[in-house]
Formats: sequence, structure tokens, C-alpha cells
Amino acid sequence: MKITQTPLVILNFKTYIESTGEKALQLARALEEVSEETGISMVAAPQGADLWRLSQEVKIPVLAQHIDPVEAGGHTGSMLLECAKEAGAAGTLINHSEQRMQLADIETVIRKTNAEGMNTVVCTNNILTSAAAAALNPDFVAIEPPELIGSGIPVSQAEPEIVEGSVAAIKDINPDVRVLCGAGISTGDDMKAALELGSEGVLLASGIIMAPDPKQALLDLVSKI
Amino acid sequence: MKITQTPLVILNFKTYIESTGEKALQLARALEEVSEETGISMVAAPQGADLWRLSQEVKIPVLAQHIDPVEAGGHTGSMLLECAKEAGAAGTLINHSEQRMQLADIETVIRKTNAEGMNTVVCTNNILTSAAAAALNPDFVAIEPPELIGSGIPVSQAEPEIVEGSVAAIKDINPDVRVLCGAGISTGDDMKAALELGSEGVLLASGIIMAPDPKQALLDLVSKI
Amino acid sequence: MKITQTPLVILNFKTYIESTGEKALQLARALEEVSEETGISMVAAPQGADLWRLSQEVKIPVLAQHIDPVEAGGHTGSMLLECAKEAGAAGTLINHSEQRMQLADIETVIRKTNAEGMNTVVCTNNILTSAAAAALNPDFVAIEPPELIGSGIPVSQAEPEIVEGSVAAIKDINPDVRVLCGAGISTGDDMKAALELGSEGVLLASGIIMAPDPKQALLDLVSKI
Amino acid sequence: MKITQTPLVILNFKTYIESTGEKALQLARALEEVSEETGISMVAAPQGADLWRLSQEVKIPVLAQHIDPVEAGGHTGSMLLECAKEAGAAGTLINHSEQRMQLADIETVIRKTNAEGMNTVVCTNNILTSAAAAALNPDFVAIEPPELIGSGIPVSQAEPEIVEGSVAAIKDINPDVRVLCGAGISTGDDMKAALELGSEGVLLASGIIMAPDPKQALLDLVSKI
Repeated sequence: MKITQTPLVILNFKTYIESTGEKALQLARALEEVSEETGISMVAAPQGADLWRLSQEVKIPVLAQHIDPVEAGGHTGSMLLECAKEAGAAGTLINHSEQRMQLADIETVIRKTNAEGMNTVVCTNNILTSAAAAALNPDFVAIEPPELIGSGIPVSQAEPEIVEGSVAAIKDINPDVRVLCGAGISTGDDMKAALELGSEGVLLASGIIMAPDPKQALLDLVSKI
Repeated sequence: MKITQTPLVILNFKTYIESTGEKALQLARALEEVSEETGISMVAAPQGADLWRLSQEVKIPVLAQHIDPVEAGGHTGSMLLECAKEAGAAGTLINHSEQRMQLADIETVIRKTNAEGMNTVVCTNNILTSAAAAALNPDFVAIEPPELIGSGIPVSQAEPEIVEGSVAAIKDINPDVRVLCGAGISTGDDMKAALELGSEGVLLASGIIMAPDPKQALLDLVSKI
Repeated sequence: MKITQTPLVILNFKTYIESTGEKALQLARALEEVSEETGISMVAAPQGADLWRLSQEVKIPVLAQHIDPVEAGGHTGSMLLECAKEAGAAGTLINHSEQRMQLADIETVIRKTNAEGMNTVVCTNNILTSAAAAALNPDFVAIEPPELIGSGIPVSQAEPEIVEGSVAAIKDINPDVRVLCGAGISTGDDMKAALELGSEGVLLASGIIMAPDPKQALLDLVSKI
Repeated sequence: MKITQTPLVILNFKTYIESTGEKALQLARALEEVSEETGISMVAAPQGADLWRLSQEVKIPVLAQHIDPVEAGGHTGSMLLECAKEAGAAGTLINHSEQRMQLADIETVIRKTNAEGMNTVVCTNNILTSAAAAALNPDFVAIEPPELIGSGIPVSQAEPEIVEGSVAAIKDINPDVRVLCGAGISTGDDMKAALELGSEGVLLASGIIMAPDPKQALLDLVSKI
């Protein structure tokens, strides 16, 4: 089912110990609670091996972190779309800076995932790649300048022109694509600024995962919307 | 816990629809039943997103199909050893022909997986790469000439000298490494021949997964031991 | 220097023995002769190790087959833009189906190559990836449905709607980008059809390289323009 | 022709501007002069696009930095063994830390390069991967702990046990394989120590390439042998 409500918060669990297994479940529950308490859309993107476990336990949408551009068959070690779907994924991150994909493969995965009615969130690094991604008809483009990922410096502050420029370039090519903004986002001010620059949500990770109290960090994040 | 009992049957679920999600669970149960009925070691290697679900439901060892050579942290979309372990994996396939790895990464994953007391099964394609793999101290080397994978032509028949030569080369370098043999194995005669050539078990996939009755196919496989 | 004259014929030498070393030089001379005799632009894209040798000997533009997205420094085994340039390359193929690149890397190589005043020819596989590539501001997009490469079945005949659709999508996003068409092109009729569908030239390989008389094959190719 | 004389100095030109094109030629001439003046074997490993130019101009052996594991044919952008050979390469570096290869591909390239009578120099990162590489029958294994590459800290000083341990492990598996040592080597004392630890030569790069006077740096390097 397509995610329609914005603003949107997607938490990329990456591969931290603090977001693995039992701790991933706790983190997903924090997202769920904040979603229920604030009414703001919260989405979890856990590791592949945690998809089933989380999707069984929480009601918020759960995304895969990556889908391989393969058909069912002999692809040992790949993440098959059909397997992610059956494990409860409502969509997937695509082309994250830590899992960059070939252009043709991005197109394949977007097309296949859209065909299943699942959500496609393509990550990009600058205005031009955001425009290119928009031409492939994903649901969301998440713009994340790689140099700011995990830096604690919010993109909305350090490079607002990249967010604004990406929003303009994306909408120019495909007005249906919605824009998220990531990299360095962690506070309520960061999120407020991100929305004011034209994005409809944020993609974040370590700022929440490594926070002493992730639930409180999420509440802070959405406190100024 | 290290797998010690041989002969050993490892079923690589790959990414077939017939071995995904609910069907993966049924296949794992067939393995478990045959293991209980025959006393022969059966091991399942499902897709990453099915690890937790299967390991919760069956008592046979469950392996990951692949582990990425990364430490915990920012590695979106990677399969982290610690996550696979918490999802119930007792070890992992490494360097399958459909997921070849760099030499340095194979060494890293073997070392880390061994350090967790988990099982390491390195796939190789010929005598020389089998010898090289043995130098890295895995628990098992599974020799699979790529041209025979999925062919229905058993390696034990088509290229027995590769199995025998690999066994000799592996034992010469590291007598503790046990040898499996894969590619084209599906019948009781294939498995018998594989053991007679010096291997201590088999790694198989489509011959069982796509069989009309996988449980019966497994029973046939071990019928001549 | 940017290539401006169209129609344009680019011959991708790939890695055939028939287009390696001394034979690459003969092939480049055939291109040069046909260019001089017919007045039609001919461009050679030889292997990296043949760039210097060919560019010293022929007057037609010579392109690299691939440039790696790296800066000068410690990148053993990579093809550095600056090295290709000094070896005589006037530009490069980018993202060929046999050398697919990540989206962010395509953007990097286009930007760096354009900044040197060199020619950028991005290969794509369908209408959507052609549109995406156009957003990155290359000089040329060469559309090549992978299933037709080396097939002898010309894309202009088998899938004319892909060529026409790509031309439309590309021009819609960036009217300055010129469109080439590849895959299965080898005869004068193929090239004529390709131009009629809106492309401004062709990218070809084995149809010419493996021809009994490559020069004659090139003359035939441009005979109906 | 196989390189037999040791001690041996291989200079990996990598992709520095200081070792590209015309400057690569000057560097190769410095190697040639030092080889002639001192009688010590000097080998150049320039970028692929400089192979032909250098091999035409200097008499010392010239190696490729990388060969792709492909057969002649449709492999756009790959470095074909046959092309490197015709461009004058007397062999190749394999699996450099900046161009890691899959185990099966390392074996393929060693086998094909040896079959042409050319030299194979496999780079490795620790004792176990050195042992594994030795099982594949290369001419040389060059052990380079990645953390020391470009550090200025010589492996012979920082981790002498890795060099000694690698020599022992390699000779145990295949006494015909000769051991080189790299990473951080730049002075006469470094090279002397490397040879005393059992290696028969060194693989170096930036320490010489970036030296104010590369020829003098090479003379210093071999001054204590």
C-alpha cells in the first residue's frame, strides 16, 4: 500500500548493533508509539533479516533497505523483492549511498516494486542525480549529500540550496514524486527547516539510533512541525 | 555450534519462489522430518529475510546464504553477521558462485564467523580455488563447478576428478577442513558417488526445491548411503 | 573538442582480438579512410591500452570505452580521465551495457569529462533510463536494448518505438542532448532507419569488427544516408 | 618472459598525475637508469593507457596494474590480457588492495597470464590470504597490509611478523612462489629490512612517485642491499 500521509519520517536502521534483532524491535516500537502519539507517519527500514520479526510486531510500515535487481531463481545471497514482500516489507530504500546501484538496476527495482503496489524511495546525492531519479517514477526521492551523512550537520542548514534545487528539479521532471531530505538531520529545527525547503519528510539514521533515548529523540524531531 | 555429524546435506534455498516465505518454511520442515526419520544431518540455507521465521520453527541448523564483510555501523542493505546470528543463523555459505567474493573478504568473513563459533561453508569452483580456500581455515569447502550448477548433471559423474583432486588438495593444506560437493546432485546415486569420491556431504538446490515432492526427493537422495 | 557534425558513426572496438593492438590500428585506419571518402563523422572507441597508439596514428576522434569515477591518486588499475586524455582520448563511452555504472558515478564522470571539454556518450537500455541520463547533461545518449546487442537484429527494426520514445523523452528533458542508437545495427538500411526514427547516429561493434572487410561494411553502413 | 633476477623493485604508478602520460615516461626512464647503473631489477607498472607508450621507450619490464578475468569478445571497458600483452606488458599486478578481485577471478587471471609466459604478482593483505594466493601458483605474492599503504610507515618495521609469517606460509604451500613486500617502503633501510625478513623484493608507489627526485629516491632505496 502506498504511503500517502506526509510529513513522513523514515528511520534507516542501517547495520548498527543498536538497531539489530531485539534492539531493532524496540526501536520499531518507539517509532510506532511516536506515530500513535503524534499522528505523524513513521516508517522503519530495518535489516533484511529483521523484516519478518518487525513486521509481525508493529503496525507502522516497514521498508527493506535494499532489493536486488534479480528475478526469482538462482541468485544465492540476493534480496528478492518477493521475499521482502512476504516478510512484510511495504517497499524499499533504493540506491542508498552505502549501497549504490547501477542506473539500469535502479530503474528495474523501481518498476518491479511499483508493480507490486509497494513504496519506492530512491536516495540521491545531488541535484542532477535527483532529477535523473525523478525520471524513473519512484514514489520518493531522498536527497542526501554523502559528505553530511552521519556528520551531525543537517543538510537543511549546511546546503539548503541542494534541497531547494533538488525539489525544483524533481518537480520539473515529475511533479508526482515527493522529496525527502536526509543526512545530518536529528533535531526539531532540522526537520522544520527541511520541510520549509520544500521536502515532505526526512530520512534519518544514527542521530536517532544512537540517541540515549530514541523515542524522546523522535518526539523532539517532530516537535516543531 | 559447529556441525560435526556427517554425511551432511545442505539445501541452498537460493531465491526461488518455491523456497520463499511460507514455502521456505514448508521446505525447512521437510528437511527436519527427513533428518528425524533418517538420522542424517540436514541443514537449510534460506534467504536472509526468512532466517528468523525458519529458525523459530525448525530444529535443524539454519545457515545464511551470504554475510557481508562489514563491521556493525553504516552499511545500509548489508547482511551483518551479528544480525544473521540473532536471526538464528548457525553459520553461512560464503562465496557461492552466484555471490562471489573478493579473496580478502572471504578471509574476513571466515575469521569473524569462526570467532562466533558459527559454521563456515566456502564454495569454490575448481581444485586450485579449493586449495586456496582451505588455507583460510573454513569448516567446509563445497566444490561446485559452475558449469554444472542447475544442470542436472552431477559433478560426481561428470567431473569426478575435480572432486577427488579437491579433496586431496584441501586435505594436503588443511586436514581439518571437510569437503562437500555440489552442482547437479539430486539422486541417491549422485550422493553415494559424491561420498565415495571423498566428500563428506552435498550442497544442493534446484534438484530438491523444484522436485514435485521435496521430502520424497530428500529421502531418495539419502537412500543409498 | 566537442564532436558537432552528425550523422555520426561510433565504432566500439570492445575487446575482440580482431580489434586489439595492430588490428585495432587497421580498423581505425578503415574508419579514417571512410570518413575522408564520405565526409561522414567516424569515431573509434578502442581499448584503453590502444588509446595512445591509435590517437598517434589517425586523425578521427578517439574515445575511451570507460572512465572510472576516481580522482588522481591511489586507484591502481583504474582508468583515470587525465590519463585517457593525455593518451589522446577526445571523450568516452559511459555506462555501456558491458560496463554498467552506478547512477552517482555516471553523473561524476559526465561532469568531469564535460569540464575537460571532452565528449560524453552515455549508453542506456530503455526509455526511462534514457530520460534519466538526459537529466545529467551528456553530449550524447546511445540507446541500446541489451537483448539486441550482438544479435544482428537492428533495434531500428525490432523495437523502433524504443528509439522514438527515447528521442522524445530525452529531448523533453534536455533538447541539447543528441541521441544515438545501437544494438544490432550493421547495414545501410539499419542506419537509414535509425536516422529516420530521430537518432543522429549509431553506435556499433561486432557487425563491423567481425565483417570480412570492415571498410566495405562501413561504406555500406553509410550508403543510404 | 619470466622475471628471474632478485632482489626486485616494482614501482606501481597507480593513478597519480605525477605518474601519468609524459610524467609516467620520465618515471620509467628513471627506473631504467637506476637499473642500468646499479644492476638491480627495476619494473614499472603504469596505467593501462600508458603501457604501449612506455614499453616502446624503455627496456625494463613493464607490468599492467590489473587484468580483467574475461575472454576476448564483448567486454567493453575491460583490460584484456591479449591487449595488455600486445601493448608491451610483461605481466600484471593482480588483486591490488585498490582493485580487489574475487577468488575465482584471481585464479583465472593467474592461469591465463602464466600460460602466456607472463609474470603474475598477486597482492595480499595478511598471512592467511598470502597462503591462499600461494596455492594458486603465481610467480610472486606481494604482501601489503592495507592500513600501511601510503602511510610512510614501512611494513618491515611496523609489522615484521606479517612479512616473516607470510614468507613461511607461502613457502610451506608452494616453495616456488617468491615473496615481495609492500606498504610504506621508501628508504634503503626499509628495503634492507624487507629482504632480511625473507622477501625478495619490494612493491612501492607514492614514496617514490611523489619524491622530489624519484631517481635519487630509487638510488637511496637500493643503497643498502
